[in-house]
Amino acid sequence: MSQFDVAVIGAGPGGYIAAIRAAQLGFHTVCIDAGVNKAGDAPALGGTCLNVGCIPSKALLQSSEHVHTILHDFADHGISLSEVRFDAEQMIARKDAIVTKLTGGIKYLFQKNKVESVFGRAAFAGKNGDLWQLIVDNGKGEYRSIDAKHVIIATGSVPRPLPLVEIDNINVLDNEGALNLSRVPGKLGVIGSGVIGLEMGSVWKRVGAEVTVLEAAPTFLAAADQQIAKEAFKYFTKEQGLDIQLGVKIAAINKGNNSVSVQYEHNGESKTVVFDKLIVAIGRVPNTQGLHPEAVGLALDERGFVVVDEECRTNLPNVWAIGDVVRGPMLAHKASDEGVAVAERIAGQKPHLDFNCIPWVIYTDPEIAWVGKTEEQLKAEGIAYKKGTSGFGANGRALGLGKAKGTVKVLSCAETDRVLGVHMIGPMVSELVAEAVMAMEFKASSEDIARIVHAHPTLSEVLHEAALAADKRALHG
Amino acid sequence: MSQFDVAVIGAGPGGYIAAIRAAQLGFHTVCIDAGVNKAGDAPALGGTCLNVGCIPSKALLQSSEHVHTILHDFADHGISLSEVRFDAEQMIARKDAIVTKLTGGIKYLFQKNKVESVFGRAAFAGKNGDLWQLIVDNGKGEYRSIDAKHVIIATGSVPRPLPLVEIDNINVLDNEGALNLSRVPGKLGVIGSGVIGLEMGSVWKRVGAEVTVLEAAPTFLAAADQQIAKEAFKYFTKEQGLDIQLGVKIAAINKGNNSVSVQYEHNGESKTVVFDKLIVAIGRVPNTQGLHPEAVGLALDERGFVVVDEECRTNLPNVWAIGDVVRGPMLAHKASDEGVAVAERIAGQKPHLDFNCIPWVIYTDPEIAWVGKTEEQLKAEGIAYKKGTSGFGANGRALGLGKAKGTVKVLSCAETDRVLGVHMIGPMVSELVAEAVMAMEFKASSEDIARIVHAHPTLSEVLHEAALAADKRALHG
Repeated sequence: MSQFDVAVIGAGPGGYIAAIRAAQLGFHTVCIDAGVNKAGDAPALGGTCLNVGCIPSKALLQSSEHVHTILHDFADHGISLSEVRFDAEQMIARKDAIVTKLTGGIKYLFQKNKVESVFGRAAFAGKNGDLWQLIVDNGKGEYRSIDAKHVIIATGSVPRPLPLVEIDNINVLDNEGALNLSRVPGKLGVIGSGVIGLEMGSVWKRVGAEVTVLEAAPTFLAAADQQIAKEAFKYFTKEQGLDIQLGVKIAAINKGNNSVSVQYEHNGESKTVVFDKLIVAIGRVPNTQGLHPEAVGLALDERGFVVVDEECRTNLPNVWAIGDVVRGPMLAHKASDEGVAVAERIAGQKPHLDFNCIPWVIYTDPEIAWVGKTEEQLKAEGIAYKKGTSGFGANGRALGLGKAKGTVKVLSCAETDRVLGVHMIGPMVSELVAEAVMAMEFKASSEDIARIVHAHPTLSEVLHEAALAADKRALHG
Repeated sequence: MSQFDVAVIGAGPGGYIAAIRAAQLGFHTVCIDAGVNKAGDAPALGGTCLNVGCIPSKALLQSSEHVHTILHDFADHGISLSEVRFDAEQMIARKDAIVTKLTGGIKYLFQKNKVESVFGRAAFAGKNGDLWQLIVDNGKGEYRSIDAKHVIIATGSVPRPLPLVEIDNINVLDNEGALNLSRVPGKLGVIGSGVIGLEMGSVWKRVGAEVTVLEAAPTFLAAADQQIAKEAFKYFTKEQGLDIQLGVKIAAINKGNNSVSVQYEHNGESKTVVFDKLIVAIGRVPNTQGLHPEAVGLALDERGFVVVDEECRTNLPNVWAIGDVVRGPMLAHKASDEGVAVAERIAGQKPHLDFNCIPWVIYTDPEIAWVGKTEEQLKAEGIAYKKGTSGFGANGRALGLGKAKGTVKVLSCAETDRVLGVHMIGPMVSELVAEAVMAMEFKASSEDIARIVHAHPTLSEVLHEAALAADKRALHG
């Protein structure tokens, strides 16, 4: 039996950051994680994000974007090539090398910060005085008992299952399988047009697959500002050739030997399409598998999330939960910042995390990013607002990059001009959103953004111009 | 004779913006500009920046980066090809198309904002009551008289001449010639390792030229933070193969038929190198050619700059000057923001421009960008500071992009933690610097940046981490 001040369950972007921060604050800290590498022969820290999520998808998006650029843009730059060959296996190998580098990096950070790293799945067992008792199962019939004053649950999420079919990661894939196809499928089906569906659909479309996306919801990217979502839909479908069908009801899925047949209803018609591979990406659900919450009376809600207050306290004293396993957006950086905050709260500090200033990013091309409220939310809440928009079409840097598409929209309070939301689709808006977050954290007005010098020629000038437009004095409008 | 409230001389990024803003504020405004297009057969607005500066260089940098990526990175992504052909003429044609689009855009903006656009070179002639008299020479022996209550001089800058040789833009090139080479030179010499020399040297190096950069100063990028400059020097020389020689004294330059011979001293040795083309980029000097400042007693300083106060007032009532023709950094966005501010001052407003929050960008690869004070400046001023650095080497987005090189450094006040400077070398730091500018405008502390959520996985996380490091609590350090 080992005793710790803090035990963190899960080494994803919430858990590993919480563990490091707790150790920095002087707590004797253990981080327990059951993740294994792709080969399945060694532990791999980093959770979904590093192993089968954010990081590997960005690697594939870049490789596939290069292929797209060759085919569509090189002639304009004066570059001609013959015999272009694309090796999906090498693309995957590059991705795997990046994942290995980063997951290994966490191991190093744990050593450096004196976080004890334990492999296995943790279950609540009970209490020992004022310590929580955890039992860690390493999957080889070996169990280790860990006692800790504080427990931080950071067990993340898992793909939401589709009752009609079982994921085999051979022909029916979740995010993990979608990241590991060694050949480009001829016809790829994607169920779900959320972030994962769009990113994976984009990757395989760019390298040659014919891609059909089937979405149950009638609205495309319902969480995003609908002006941005509509512009995105146009790019993805009309320009890039993704076949995105909304309001679809899946009726049946049948696996063949080397194919998957999907039967569905769309616009009142019944259709059947046969795909070579099918990605199921219909959202994610909280992961409390093996945690044994009932052993200690840890409260979960009806959807399986660990119930927490605004500061990540569960119903049990000194038991905290962060990241995808609790309410709020399932975003890696939200998990990390909750992790930091909880470690600091355990140390008696008073950190604060403003959910309204957490940015969202989708790494399609063009990228989509936003922070704050959408127009739809402002209307629903009855808040009067001003808006300013500006496009990338006449932005010098965007034209130089060959990516002069997209829009930035700034929404500010009609009365005070305080920025309420910034919505972007365009090149590198994943990075541009950082300025908008900074502005909103400082309660900036659109005039503040308009009066701040933006380097020329940069993409960020489009945000500047949108802010000027909100103030009714666009210079390039 | 025509009468105006405001006459702006020059339609570069200072002048055209000043004219639009003045017109928006209700002034009857004229903008006088003598720029012509590349063919020399039609007026072209936009000044050096749009025609032969910021914008065309970014276009060439992108095209040449594609070539570099093919040669150095594609194999890693699984992309193989044979027979890569590069057509410099097409690269130049693409660049020209972007320039034409943007310069035409200003013409449209002038029409939309009711700015009268007059072609020709403006000279001060005298006064007519309380109006300033200008004479505009269109170069065809036609003269037009314009009277205006306010004059904004935005005549920009021209390349600093090198007494030893005349620019012919055939074999001895300034920025204009460097942007228009229709073939890749075998051996390219560049005199001057400033922004223009480095950007143009990079373009032609990437597409196959052997490039030698000769710099008189003993220090590389003396205006930049020297930690960043040293890192840049290493990338440019050791990794990219630019031959940059510092502390060089040019002794003689001789033009041959298809070559240029440069004789110089370096480290006490006398050397002679023969280049196919030579770019001279030793800085820029204020342009007051044909302005006739003496006709009205407009004060210039000993270096030829129009003398202005902090708010761009010259020694003459209602005569203002902005941009490269006055003190301060020769940056397009500095000119634009001075233009807006002057138009607003004429309208009786009280705008303020903080020179310390003007960002600098160099579009090499990696890019270099900064805002605020360098370590060298802080030491010279005796200001006690803290510093935090973080690298792109373990940043997931940078690894995905295949650009995991570079550093971000945050400098903050030792006593108050207020951010005093942010210095960056790395991928897309031209865009990342916008967040740092926003932070400094709001007088943020490094802890403020550290406590703000940064999207994952983004390059901006490196700035976040550098801010955490300044606060001695790096999570990934």
